[in-house]
Amino acid sequence: MMLEKGDKLQKAEAKLKVHPYHMESWNVLIKDAQEKHIDVSRKTYERLMETYPTCGRFWKLYIEEELKCKNFERVESLFQRCLLKVLNLDLWKFYLTYVKETKRGLPNFREKMMKAYEFALDKVGIDVASGNIWSDYVNFIKDGEAAGSYAENQKIMAIRRVYQRAVMMPLSNVEQLWRDYSTFEQNVNEIIAKKLLEERSRDYQNARRVAKDYEATTRGLTRGAPAVPPQNSAEERQQIEMWKKYIAWEKNNPMRSDDNNLMKKRVMYAYEQALLTWGHHPDIWYEAALFLERSANLVHEKGDTQSAQHWRDEVAALYEKATKGLLKNNLLLHFAFADYEESRMKTKECHDIYTNLVSTVPDPTLVYVQYMKFARRAEGIAAARAVFKKAREDKKATYHVYVAGALMEYYTTKSKEIALKIFELGLKKYPKNTSYILKYLSHLAHQNDDNTTRVLFERVLTSLDKEQSWPIWSEFLSFESNVGDLASLMKVEKRRSNAFESECKMKETSLLVDRYKYLDLYPCTNQELRAMDYQIEQ
Amino acid sequence: MMLEKGDKLQKAEAKLKVHPYHMESWNVLIKDAQEKHIDVSRKTYERLMETYPTCGRFWKLYIEEELKCKNFERVESLFQRCLLKVLNLDLWKFYLTYVKETKRGLPNFREKMMKAYEFALDKVGIDVASGNIWSDYVNFIKDGEAAGSYAENQKIMAIRRVYQRAVMMPLSNVEQLWRDYSTFEQNVNEIIAKKLLEERSRDYQNARRVAKDYEATTRGLTRGAPAVPPQNSAEERQQIEMWKKYIAWEKNNPMRSDDNNLMKKRVMYAYEQALLTWGHHPDIWYEAALFLERSANLVHEKGDTQSAQHWRDEVAALYEKATKGLLKNNLLLHFAFADYEESRMKTKECHDIYTNLVSTVPDPTLVYVQYMKFARRAEGIAAARAVFKKAREDKKATYHVYVAGALMEYYTTKSKEIALKIFELGLKKYPKNTSYILKYLSHLAHQNDDNTTRVLFERVLTSLDKEQSWPIWSEFLSFESNVGDLASLMKVEKRRSNAFESECKMKETSLLVDRYKYLDLYPCTNQELRAMDYQIEQ
Repeated sequence: MMLEKGDKLQKAEAKLKVHPYHMESWNVLIKDAQEKHIDVSRKTYERLMETYPTCGRFWKLYIEEELKCKNFERVESLFQRCLLKVLNLDLWKFYLTYVKETKRGLPNFREKMMKAYEFALDKVGIDVASGNIWSDYVNFIKDGEAAGSYAENQKIMAIRRVYQRAVMMPLSNVEQLWRDYSTFEQNVNEIIAKKLLEERSRDYQNARRVAKDYEATTRGLTRGAPAVPPQNSAEERQQIEMWKKYIAWEKNNPMRSDDNNLMKKRVMYAYEQALLTWGHHPDIWYEAALFLERSANLVHEKGDTQSAQHWRDEVAALYEKATKGLLKNNLLLHFAFADYEESRMKTKECHDIYTNLVSTVPDPTLVYVQYMKFARRAEGIAAARAVFKKAREDKKATYHVYVAGALMEYYTTKSKEIALKIFELGLKKYPKNTSYILKYLSHLAHQNDDNTTRVLFERVLTSLDKEQSWPIWSEFLSFESNVGDLASLMKVEKRRSNAFESECKMKETSLLVDRYKYLDLYPCTNQELRAMDYQIEQ
Repeated sequence: MMLEKGDKLQKAEAKLKVHPYHMESWNVLIKDAQEKHIDVSRKTYERLMETYPTCGRFWKLYIEEELKCKNFERVESLFQRCLLKVLNLDLWKFYLTYVKETKRGLPNFREKMMKAYEFALDKVGIDVASGNIWSDYVNFIKDGEAAGSYAENQKIMAIRRVYQRAVMMPLSNVEQLWRDYSTFEQNVNEIIAKKLLEERSRDYQNARRVAKDYEATTRGLTRGAPAVPPQNSAEERQQIEMWKKYIAWEKNNPMRSDDNNLMKKRVMYAYEQALLTWGHHPDIWYEAALFLERSANLVHEKGDTQSAQHWRDEVAALYEKATKGLLKNNLLLHFAFADYEESRMKTKECHDIYTNLVSTVPDPTLVYVQYMKFARRAEGIAAARAVFKKAREDKKATYHVYVAGALMEYYTTKSKEIALKIFELGLKKYPKNTSYILKYLSHLAHQNDDNTTRVLFERVLTSLDKEQSWPIWSEFLSFESNVGDLASLMKVEKRRSNAFESECKMKETSLLVDRYKYLDLYPCTNQELRAMDYQIEQ
């Protein structure tokens, strides 16, 4: 029995080494952890949270285990780690229950609890399903003792304030809240009640309408599912589409409010909810950042420069969250972040992003290419050359940096000589890399210096092994077909045939197709090409 | 009943209009033709032969119908049309039977019949399955009357000659032929027989060995199937592979003969057999032509210049047969033919091939491109320009000729100015063709003249409709990313977004991927790209 269990664990661990997000294996580990003492299983929970940092359910599991052993300090520290990052309703309700149950004995318990409610409502009170937090809050205030008419009055005003905030929110239980609020006001004072309720009625009607729409729009959304990298399953696509519909619905300002701040807050809440589960999808992060940036531009145009400034910093914070979190290996978001900071003239921040990225990603090549482009744009060719030098010295970078470096010189400084020097440097480092050689040759051929080009062809063909030389021969043929005569063309063809004697024999006609094709024109029908196993380029 | 039949015919005709080679429909037409008098159905047979000119079975069907009505003149004219082109054993046997049965009454019948046998054996006597023609021939001579010892002697010599030729051929019945021959010689003269048979024994043993191999190699080959354009079915691929194996076997000189002529004849017979069914496949024609050409070079090297000359003319005849026959619409074979004639300095023939082709194919563009290249190589830039002028005036030619014309000037006369003038001429003719514009822009961008390039971008973007402008915008972006600063890059991006507002909103992140990708490097994993429906270029 024990052995079997050990086997299961081992199997799960082996699976996770290859597929770190494999849910069934995690379930085996979680089940095992729950059967052990938290001091033993804590390591497992920490690994779980590292893998699924945005999953409210897993945070709750972990905290519950610490609670069982009354490790209150640890519990509070865990809440600190997760609450602000994970706006998951169940997690927040669990937090409120925790405060209610563990702080009851403290002298300032009521104050602490009120603060906790306010804190929660500020973060998740916007959610259509947060209605019972609102009603719990009201009931909590109602339960409070109030000695004397002043205190009684204070209490009534506190209850009224919460009710009045709640009934203008699109919550699923907003009708019940409105009935409770009406009853409450009528019990306080029937005459004033009428006036107060009339004043709020329009906002309540609006909230009720939107709540229905909100519920319909979010129906079917799976919430709280652990975030995993794109699986491209049908289910995933369907869910993401639904989430995007919900976000688009919020962007359409269903509250019909003039309050830019409210609208932005609601849209960003929708994005944050989506990102809890779909945070491995760069497009959702980027769209959220774009929305925030555009909202900032909008309020800026309207004269609210302070909000604009604040929101622009939020954009940077959002990028920071993505690139330090789930998407720390995604280059796209890093580049978008850098471009954003570049557009705000924050050159130092850009350098930080690029240099940090270069040292953390497995293949920094594309980072260097973009870094060079940034340096040239922001600080000029000298800075870009410094980046190129760094790239050249980085053993993890591939030939692409030489192509980028050479073409940068060619296109921006217009120096053919430096470009050629860099291409030559690259050739010394990658003498057998056909992709690189082809880039070099293509550049040279465009220079229209036939002799230099021919010399390069001959040079690389003598140094390359046969296996690698095929595409170079093809390029040589295409070059001679542009500038040479039939004799030189056929001479190159003959030399290639000799080099690839056995290979060529089987596909002589395919080679002939290569000789005659031009741009997208082929000398045979598709059927004919397929019959001779000819691969058409797309 | 009649109506139903008429329906069937109509349906078949309708199908053939779209699929001219649809066999089931042809079977309906053939069945109908066979039920009618030949004077009515002759038109159908002529259409059938136009569609399937290499199908021996259909020729036989047609001739049989004419024979039924004793239209001997027509029969002979049909034999003349098909026999030399269609080396199909059944057709040839049918011809021999025809001669035997219809010429019997003529005074010179025996002479005619002997000629017919010789004719047939010269053309198809090489076939492993032609053994019964050989034995029929022998028996025919044996049946002849011979009055007097001189005539008797002549007859014996004639029989011996045929036997001696037959027993050294790899025929499926060569063992029987050898036994018959042995008996024959022993009946003539037992003493001489031993010597004569000993002399032939080695060649016979060789033929017997090869015949077995020959039968094994050709086992499973479908013969006589009508030739249709490539279907790319599994069966077709399997058959072609088997035919190529058979041809390769012949190329390996299984007879172990020193006679280049014999070897060449056997290989070409295999090719001709293959082409009866697979004549719509350009690769088989081309390989046959290459084999002939190489054989010619080989015997030339060995000093046999006369054979070499003769075989080289055969190469041209083979190309002629292909390009006038089944592959009259295939450009590849025409180009290969022209290149072959060019290599033999037959410039006039090349002009004929190209000018003829230009007027017969539906789209002459690629022909003009190759024709220009030929003219430049063979006669210089003036001749090439004359072809370009013709291409420009041809309404069926597409934008490609302008690209080819401009780049020809750029790469061969090295004149940037003329190249640009031609590109401009093309732009006037194709102001809304994005493929053309992209070629022009790419050329200009390589010239490294940023201002001229920017001006062209602006010019074409103002004249293009929105639907066509997307790839130009993308090119503009990539250009600015090479030479511009972030502000100009983002300005172009902004302008594109404005032009494609609704389209861009849905795929902002995909556009961002385009901004950051470099050569084959992408800023996202494949999974991520798929999740955002990004199409990776191959």
